[in-house]
Amino acid sequence: MTTGQKHLKSGSECPPLKENQLRLYSMRFCPFVRRVKLVLAAKNIPYEEIFINLNDEPEWYLKKNPVGEVPLLEWIDRDSKEIRSIPESLIISNYLDDLYPEHRLHPVDPYLKAKQQVLIDRHGNVRSAFYKLFRSKEQNAVEDLKQSLTFYEEALQDKFFGGSKPAMVDYMLWPWFESFPALKETGFVLNADGKLPKLANWCKEMQENDAVRKTKVPDDVVQKFTHTVQQGKTDYDVE
Amino acid sequence: MTTGQKHLKSGSECPPLKENQLRLYSMRFCPFVRRVKLVLAAKNIPYEEIFINLNDEPEWYLKKNPVGEVPLLEWIDRDSKEIRSIPESLIISNYLDDLYPEHRLHPVDPYLKAKQQVLIDRHGNVRSAFYKLFRSKEQNAVEDLKQSLTFYEEALQDKFFGGSKPAMVDYMLWPWFESFPALKETGFVLNADGKLPKLANWCKEMQENDAVRKTKVPDDVVQKFTHTVQQGKTDYDVE
Repeated sequence: MTTGQKHLKSGSECPPLKENQLRLYSMRFCPFVRRVKLVLAAKNIPYEEIFINLNDEPEWYLKKNPVGEVPLLEWIDRDSKEIRSIPESLIISNYLDDLYPEHRLHPVDPYLKAKQQVLIDRHGNVRSAFYKLFRSKEQNAVEDLKQSLTFYEEALQDKFFGGSKPAMVDYMLWPWFESFPALKETGFVLNADGKLPKLANWCKEMQENDAVRKTKVPDDVVQKFTHTVQQGKTDYDVE
Repeated sequence: MTTGQKHLKSGSECPPLKENQLRLYSMRFCPFVRRVKLVLAAKNIPYEEIFINLNDEPEWYLKKNPVGEVPLLEWIDRDSKEIRSIPESLIISNYLDDLYPEHRLHPVDPYLKAKQQVLIDRHGNVRSAFYKLFRSKEQNAVEDLKQSLTFYEEALQDKFFGGSKPAMVDYMLWPWFESFPALKETGFVLNADGKLPKLANWCKEMQENDAVRKTKVPDDVVQKFTHTVQQGKTDYDVE
């Protein structure tokens, strides 16, 4: 994490792209970007990170990625010298796993890979319940969230979803689990009723993981950021 | 396509599952199922097809797949003799491509694979515009659909999205393109204004493709089915 770096806005210039370096367009608190950073860290892939202000995207960024979202991975192709890029956290993560097959994060066995992919796919249910609760604080959203988490509690048969060590699925799910403290005003605490013990243990194990520790934004900074969002005055550059 | 086979309902019994045979739970007109059938046909993989009535799912099917959706791929594992299954059209299609690497449908090159995956991912925009138009017949939905198709027109640089022959991306997109005639009452015709010539040509090429021809339901049967849906009296067993 490059601290002190500001999120670039409209009117800014795109920092020059260097050869032989991966660039990740990012927003410091974005859980989708975090997925890619976890993969990069787990595979020890060096990269440069450029922060984008998602409320006021630079004109040059919208040319690169018209939907205006992060993450976007960009680099100069070694052979053709063309600038290449890939959007979407899952597509970037799979690309990195294909490109750097050392420390492979997807299982090689097609059936195991498919089963873990189902867990990644269904995580949309956790995310919608999470965001609904974050915005509305409605208590029925608490039930939706617990319900969506039960599926993961039942699926967890080992220390990690990937088995004895974290795999792609663990990294793809993790950023939202780490963000549960942002829901504390709603009264939601993971496993408060003791019904999600395996998930609670998984969270503890994940917190100790090297890639998670290396890419973590300090809790107090995340809290300050969350507060600005809740006040309707999102400040990406809180320190 | 097993003609004459009915879509199984509640109260039915699950036909016994045989060893050494893939089973596909299906609905005859489902575009998501069609994706998987295109992959199975393109790779010459034999399988058995069981139709499920999605308005009145058999109890035994809801045990296998609590979300009650098709497709679901099921088989008996050769070693453990356990029954295994995988849901979701994209996950099943990727699984089949991993399991049967002959006639690989995903490119081996990680960058090409990622670029084609973006086309598969963004197809959600075409589908939402398609269903909105099918239901509402609103003319602004026509504009949404044209807009979402422009992205594909621009992305099409060769005869197929996969290059000189169809790849996974072509098969994942195709079922909705084949269904455009279902929108004829809304006035929508692909490339009516001549602005989508490459897509129109792609459609012609796809219609000639062996896997497409082998898995196609005859147009008049599709029309009858569409009519029952529009009348609010969905009949999966029209002939």
